[in-house]
Amino acid sequence: MTHPTACIIIIGNEILSGRTQDLNINYMAQGLSKRGIILKEAVIIPDEEEKIIDIVQSASRKYTYVFTTGGIGGTHDDITAACIAKAFGTSVYLHPEAFEILKNHYKELLNDARTRMAYVPEGAGLIPNPVSAAPGFQIENVYCLAGIPPVMQGMFDKLIMTLGAGPSLLSRSVRSKVAENNIAAELGKIQEKFPDVEIGSYPRFIPPNGYELNLVVRGTDERLISLAVEELLELIRKEGQEALVE
Amino acid sequence: MTHPTACIIIIGNEILSGRTQDLNINYMAQGLSKRGIILKEAVIIPDEEEKIIDIVQSASRKYTYVFTTGGIGGTHDDITAACIAKAFGTSVYLHPEAFEILKNHYKELLNDARTRMAYVPEGAGLIPNPVSAAPGFQIENVYCLAGIPPVMQGMFDKLIMTLGAGPSLLSRSVRSKVAENNIAAELGKIQEKFPDVEIGSYPRFIPPNGYELNLVVRGTDERLISLAVEELLELIRKEGQEALVE
Repeated sequence: MTHPTACIIIIGNEILSGRTQDLNINYMAQGLSKRGIILKEAVIIPDEEEKIIDIVQSASRKYTYVFTTGGIGGTHDDITAACIAKAFGTSVYLHPEAFEILKNHYKELLNDARTRMAYVPEGAGLIPNPVSAAPGFQIENVYCLAGIPPVMQGMFDKLIMTLGAGPSLLSRSVRSKVAENNIAAELGKIQEKFPDVEIGSYPRFIPPNGYELNLVVRGTDERLISLAVEELLELIRKEGQEALVE
Repeated sequence: MTHPTACIIIIGNEILSGRTQDLNINYMAQGLSKRGIILKEAVIIPDEEEKIIDIVQSASRKYTYVFTTGGIGGTHDDITAACIAKAFGTSVYLHPEAFEILKNHYKELLNDARTRMAYVPEGAGLIPNPVSAAPGFQIENVYCLAGIPPVMQGMFDKLIMTLGAGPSLLSRSVRSKVAENNIAAELGKIQEKFPDVEIGSYPRFIPPNGYELNLVVRGTDERLISLAVEELLELIRKEGQEALVE
């Protein structure tokens, strides 16, 4: 059994200008890992039609699942639905069920801008929005979610449970104060000995003068991961350091 | 005078697995904006040779500047230098000046893994590292920086001052509690009236029940920005709300 793959496309000038720190990639990345879906790429692009169409088409061909966030509100800069429609050679239409949802939610406050949120590409399914009503939508393997983090999270948490999962991705962290480059050669040998797990080495500075090395072992076979972790612990002991396994 | 463009490529399985929240894109995005360089794309990819080569080649053709972070340490999972070399049809070699820097810094602690950090693509220039000595490198329009945030920041802050700048990108924020979709139509009209500024509309939930709308006006002409902001303020006043301009 292989792992499904995924790509995240963040549509948002506000992230590229530096005004806003993106939080959506990390949230979705964690959810995908837990579900055994491998996130192969995440990309942040501007609210530009050509760019959106181009990247959605290419990601849809390459990956099992494609998630977009942002640009599905009711203002002039919300162009995601129209672009996704074009990417699939179709156009948007007023989705009757989406329109009902908005009517029930907004009642007398339903205006043109809010109604605009019920326009989705022809052939698209709806993605429920438990936070603020206006649904996301799905066409083929592309899932279009809101950009506001709590709204995106509400949509994503329900959606992810409906997607085909892969074997669980397991990981173990071995934290120590060993200097990464003191053990680099031996670390490479352990990686060669266990080609079916992935060993990542992540040094980190802790202000003002602290330091920590986090060795992360990832894979799907608990036994192989444990064996690799044992060898890492032995390596750290030889350096005269202690380790914490998480 | 037009704006130079940029692309950021984050090389790191630890970001895609959700283990680590990326902070590098936002830091660089802010620095680029201040310098009048427009960030057109940011992409996070795994430590995989083919993927790195592919995206570096394509970004190098499309954008004025390409920045990569990550994968330039001394362990087995640090493959950036070798991949960038391949992307430009060359190979890595022991850069004499980089080797000197590492010898002076590490002295008797200089081992094979640390020496590995002095291998850069043939023809590459060095990017000084004021934090932890081991330099980054530059080949053509591609700038390869460390992945650890404080080290990346030290490299980036010096580097950015040496790059050709564009006209300053100015922006003004108009914050209020107006419901975005109540003013969507009028907002679209203001955007049409001022095609040379970009007006973004960013609603935000403030837990538990708060809400704020941030209208951001961006451009290079202070006068046009001020005129657009005046119209936004008038629009908000008509809704019976107060606004804060920043």
